[in-house]
Amino acid sequence: MNGAQRLIRTLVDAAVDVCFMNPGTSEMHFVAALDDVPEMRAVLGLFEGVVTGAADGYGRMAGRPAATLLHLGPGLGNGIANLHNARRARTPLVNVVGEHATSHLRHDPPLAMDIESLARPVSSWYRSSSSPDALAADTVDAVTAACGPPGSVATLVVPADVSWTEVTDPSSSPTSRGGPKDGRPAGALATVAVDVVTAVAKALRSGEPAVVLLGGSATRRAGLLAASRVAGVTGAKLMCETFPAALERGAGLPPVERLGYLAEFTQAQLAGARHLILVDAVAPVSFFAYPGIPGYLVPDGCEVHVLAAPGDDGPGGLEALADVLGAPTDGFVLQPASRPERPTGVLTAESAGAAIGALLPEGAVVSDEANTSGIFIPGATAGAPVHDWLCLTGGAIGQGMPVATGAAVACPGRRVLSLEADGSAMYTLQALWTQAREGLDVTTVIFNNGSYAILEMELGRVGAGSPGPRAHGMLDIARPDLDFAALARGMGVPATRATTAEEFTVQLERALGEDGPVLVEAVLARGGW
Amino acid sequence: MNGAQRLIRTLVDAAVDVCFMNPGTSEMHFVAALDDVPEMRAVLGLFEGVVTGAADGYGRMAGRPAATLLHLGPGLGNGIANLHNARRARTPLVNVVGEHATSHLRHDPPLAMDIESLARPVSSWYRSSSSPDALAADTVDAVTAACGPPGSVATLVVPADVSWTEVTDPSSSPTSRGGPKDGRPAGALATVAVDVVTAVAKALRSGEPAVVLLGGSATRRAGLLAASRVAGVTGAKLMCETFPAALERGAGLPPVERLGYLAEFTQAQLAGARHLILVDAVAPVSFFAYPGIPGYLVPDGCEVHVLAAPGDDGPGGLEALADVLGAPTDGFVLQPASRPERPTGVLTAESAGAAIGALLPEGAVVSDEANTSGIFIPGATAGAPVHDWLCLTGGAIGQGMPVATGAAVACPGRRVLSLEADGSAMYTLQALWTQAREGLDVTTVIFNNGSYAILEMELGRVGAGSPGPRAHGMLDIARPDLDFAALARGMGVPATRATTAEEFTVQLERALGEDGPVLVEAVLARGGW
Repeated sequence: MNGAQRLIRTLVDAAVDVCFMNPGTSEMHFVAALDDVPEMRAVLGLFEGVVTGAADGYGRMAGRPAATLLHLGPGLGNGIANLHNARRARTPLVNVVGEHATSHLRHDPPLAMDIESLARPVSSWYRSSSSPDALAADTVDAVTAACGPPGSVATLVVPADVSWTEVTDPSSSPTSRGGPKDGRPAGALATVAVDVVTAVAKALRSGEPAVVLLGGSATRRAGLLAASRVAGVTGAKLMCETFPAALERGAGLPPVERLGYLAEFTQAQLAGARHLILVDAVAPVSFFAYPGIPGYLVPDGCEVHVLAAPGDDGPGGLEALADVLGAPTDGFVLQPASRPERPTGVLTAESAGAAIGALLPEGAVVSDEANTSGIFIPGATAGAPVHDWLCLTGGAIGQGMPVATGAAVACPGRRVLSLEADGSAMYTLQALWTQAREGLDVTTVIFNNGSYAILEMELGRVGAGSPGPRAHGMLDIARPDLDFAALARGMGVPATRATTAEEFTVQLERALGEDGPVLVEAVLARGGW
Repeated sequence: MNGAQRLIRTLVDAAVDVCFMNPGTSEMHFVAALDDVPEMRAVLGLFEGVVTGAADGYGRMAGRPAATLLHLGPGLGNGIANLHNARRARTPLVNVVGEHATSHLRHDPPLAMDIESLARPVSSWYRSSSSPDALAADTVDAVTAACGPPGSVATLVVPADVSWTEVTDPSSSPTSRGGPKDGRPAGALATVAVDVVTAVAKALRSGEPAVVLLGGSATRRAGLLAASRVAGVTGAKLMCETFPAALERGAGLPPVERLGYLAEFTQAQLAGARHLILVDAVAPVSFFAYPGIPGYLVPDGCEVHVLAAPGDDGPGGLEALADVLGAPTDGFVLQPASRPERPTGVLTAESAGAAIGALLPEGAVVSDEANTSGIFIPGATAGAPVHDWLCLTGGAIGQGMPVATGAAVACPGRRVLSLEADGSAMYTLQALWTQAREGLDVTTVIFNNGSYAILEMELGRVGAGSPGPRAHGMLDIARPDLDFAALARGMGVPATRATTAEEFTVQLERALGEDGPVLVEAVLARGGW
């Protein structure tokens, strides 16, 4: 057994049995070992941004890590942006990066880079394995670090000689070690202390305006139900982060208001609050700074209470809080079922949103990178059957289609709806090919408005005077027009184009009923939402 | 005048008047300032790998830097791989990265990353500007560092508040400072010392087998002519690096043999050499290590002599050497004009190469990322009219199409031929859109063999036993088949598909005669070269 075989076997034994990859020569022993460990599912991406984003989507939905396999520093570089998003999502992810053979590095071959310097900004844990005998322990440590809690990106660098050399020490067998056996966190979530619950309960009993802000683990069913009990008995406002990693929502679940993307909206949402209760969430900060506008968005005079930090048992803390507050065990408000009418007429962000609300299937997983074109969709789908909503956690565009791909691998039998803005789609469009190759049930909607519309909005907000035509030209992506249906077909994904609300509705309905990936391009009426 | 305006004005004053960009909110003041400094040409890329690769291609052909504009850490991450290639090419490049406003960073907003940690591995020079008053000097320093010699990547980080704040200190005007005025190196190339020339001349006069290895500045006309004089009078073998940044070649120029990609080839090429003369080149190292095979490829007993290091005047050193050796001033061997016949029959890498050799226009700039499909092309074009050949300097795939894009911006009036392997093409295919938008005369040939063929070859070479179907599956990109003509049309580039040598020749000939970008997909017969 060589190091590569040991690595894959150890991953599989720790229930990390999916590996998204784009290997190169230094990873060929890993690739060759795939036939020796058939329990490992290997999924090829044509670009590393697809690989890392898919591992993020998988980890969010499976609740346990996938592995990646990246080729040296350049491969890692290509995957950095989506590792950043995974880090912000606190996704468990084992990021395996191949490296030159140890003896070869001193020659500074053309592909050599400082991998550690690249990896550190996105990794909570980093190690370069020194020998095949150490590799089992290194792998277990990486999985353990990735699982947390909280989940995080653990980067394990594997030099080519460590992969190709035979293991000599039988005591280094992974089964002789502790560590996660099922890919779940090795350590339990930390129980929220009674005095913390008591202090938060006291603040909420004050009668002063309060906001309960949910993030991470608290945006799933258990956390939402408990939080709704708390809100019901105290009048606190229930909210969640702007871009939750995975929000469970829909008819029969407590509705939760998301913080706005724009600082002004968040300020309005939080205005008057005297207590902000954080549950696996961070205090709101604006995405960007603007001249003369505060970046920290907690109102003056508002006290911040941490009920649960990342790694704490947020849902358990909320339940304890609800009990202490004497909330009835069924004292939650549930979203009633409702769907918009099927839209007609001009195809706009609003009518497209209505179509999605009318058609969203039960149990869908929505990967949302629709950006400005998506602003009406959360409202239109609020009363749709229960579904999951995956957001752009780190703000690095190019996340949506890879995350949809990984979520589909994690959730066979569920429909994945990938909602994509045109500009973001062009970052990691190669995800479509992996969807076709794996036969994944992903329905992609591309909102083609021919523009970096969010930047057009921001250009007007940053106080840069009256920008001229050259500035606006940098935000115009309609010269030439992108034809996403053609692009999809070029990667083996059937696709249609819709230019009216009726066309879009019919095409989306058909796409949602088909096996395998389908793309619907929504050509939005220009010059308006 | 705010910092952004000062930055662009300073760049333009230093003759850095092209900026490849993909901006975000933190760069909106830079974008707005484009209308205030119309001398700056702004070229939009849909992905940062296109932006950095285009800046590399521009710098190689213009001999002076372009600027980039990247959005925060994730934008830099997306551009890392092609910055790595630029670093290995010693391309002058001013890499401008936007950063959050200084006061905003302490809130750790979602997009915040450790930019310096990401940038250092690809940057010879790094600075984060602290104020708009410092920005002119910082910019001049960045351009100076980028220009070298040798050229390199200089990364200048510009916080949003530095961009939007007004300049207060008039003495910080760029014209009050020194620094490059025309984008050429501020310092002259270092003259090669007489004793170095004398020592190399002595080695060459020994009559022992010798190789003169050219790289960097020595692969242009002046260096080639002088090197050929040296070879002519000494019998030394004239070679150049495996992947020169920009090799001038064709009929009427001295031919130079490139080191092979595979270690075995390089070993055969250098076998018996007792002296290796490096001229702006590094001693040969294999791209990858293999079990039991040496990575350092200089033969045992071969003495390495550095005639010129990067930053030295390599061509001047070669001329001095030729003179010391008493070589006649016209004592060079020139490549005779010759072209292959137009090919017929099956479309293979070999027949496609013949078509390219038959048709390559005079003055063409060839961006070569054809990988295994390209092995016959250098031979087939050796006697074509004079042209430039740009190679995959750092080995990080996804270089070719962006480099072709930047080269076309640098060389209006010249035809750029972009030779792309299918796997590499899928890394940064978005370059086609920029070519269409800018109306660039780039003819792209995609060699579609449905495979990471180079990895299939490497899989058989790394000593990994007999890999099975799952391993081979990871190198197969024909499930589903990619349709590059459809992909090109989706980005506004006219395209055709060729499946025979005759079709390919006709389509290539037509494409080379058209204005603006055209793509020809060469669907190679599977299962053979």
